[in-house]
Amino acid sequence: MTAEFLTLDDLAVGQIFRSASHQLDAEQIMAFARDFDPQPFHVDEESARHTFFGGLAASGWHTAAITMRLMVASTPILGGLIGMGGEIAWPQPTRPGDILHVESEVIEIIPSRSRPDRGKVKFRITTVNQDGQAVQILVAKLVVPTRLAQNAETRPL
Amino acid sequence: MTAEFLTLDDLAVGQIFRSASHQLDAEQIMAFARDFDPQPFHVDEESARHTFFGGLAASGWHTAAITMRLMVASTPILGGLIGMGGEIAWPQPTRPGDILHVESEVIEIIPSRSRPDRGKVKFRITTVNQDGQAVQILVAKLVVPTRLAQNAETRPL
Repeated sequence: MTAEFLTLDDLAVGQIFRSASHQLDAEQIMAFARDFDPQPFHVDEESARHTFFGGLAASGWHTAAITMRLMVASTPILGGLIGMGGEIAWPQPTRPGDILHVESEVIEIIPSRSRPDRGKVKFRITTVNQDGQAVQILVAKLVVPTRLAQNAETRPL
Repeated sequence: MTAEFLTLDDLAVGQIFRSASHQLDAEQIMAFARDFDPQPFHVDEESARHTFFGGLAASGWHTAAITMRLMVASTPILGGLIGMGGEIAWPQPTRPGDILHVESEVIEIIPSRSRPDRGKVKFRITTVNQDGQAVQILVAKLVVPTRLAQNAETRPL
C-alpha cells in the first residue's frame, strides 16, 4: 500500500531526487508578486529596468514555492514533505523564460533518540535554471517517519 | 522625493518595524497549496486530520509569502526589499483563522568595504499569530543602499 513511499530506513546520504521542469514566464512572476511581493522589480517590466535587478525577476518566495511544487512531485517521503526550516539563498535572480528543475540530495540522516518512529533528514535542495546555474539553494531539515511508523500505524506519523 | 524611504544610514540595531495584520482562512491556505504545495495537510480539511498536523495547516512557503507581503508594506527601504537569503524556521503551524503580523528587527548593519553606496542589513523577521506565538522566524540579509546612493543617482542601487 505504501511501498512507493520512502521511510528514513530507505534513505542514504548522497541519494539525489531530480524533479521535472517548470518554465516560468513574466505573467506567472507578476501574478505571484501582485499577491505576495508587490515591488517594482517583480510586478512591472518597464519599472524593473531601473532597479537593482535591471529587469523583471521573480520574488525569491516564488522561486521557493515553485521549488516546493517540483519537490513534492519528485520526492516520495512517507507522510509527505514536512519541513522544520533551513537555510535559503538566492545566488542568481530567476527570470522570465527560465526553465527550472530541482535536485534534492540527502546530506544527513538523524534518527531520533527518543522517538523510534521518526527522525530528521537534511536535504540540500538546489533549484537549477536552463544554464545549469543555481537560482536557489535550500538546506532544510525534514521530519521523516521510520519503517516502524509505517508498520505500526495507518497514520504515517 | 525619497525622504520617506530609509537608507543604511537611517537604520540602527534594535529598530523594529511592525506590520499590519492579515487574517488567514482555509480557502487561502488551500488555494496557495493547490498551486505550490499540494499535500493532504494543506489542501483538504478531512485528509489533514489524519496527518502529522492533525488538521489543515498552511504551507510554510505560504507563511513566508504572507510575511513578505506584510513586510513590503511596513518596511520602507530605499530601492525595495532585496533579500540575499537567510535562515527560516516554522516553530508552529499556521492555521485557518490565524491573524498574522510581522515584526522586523534590525540586528546587524554591515557597511560594504568596497562599495560606499550600499551595505547589508540583517533583520530578524518574526511572524506572530493572534496568541503571540511565532509561526515563522526568518533571519535574513538584505542589500540596502546608503545615503550616498540616494544623493548620487536617481536609480537607487
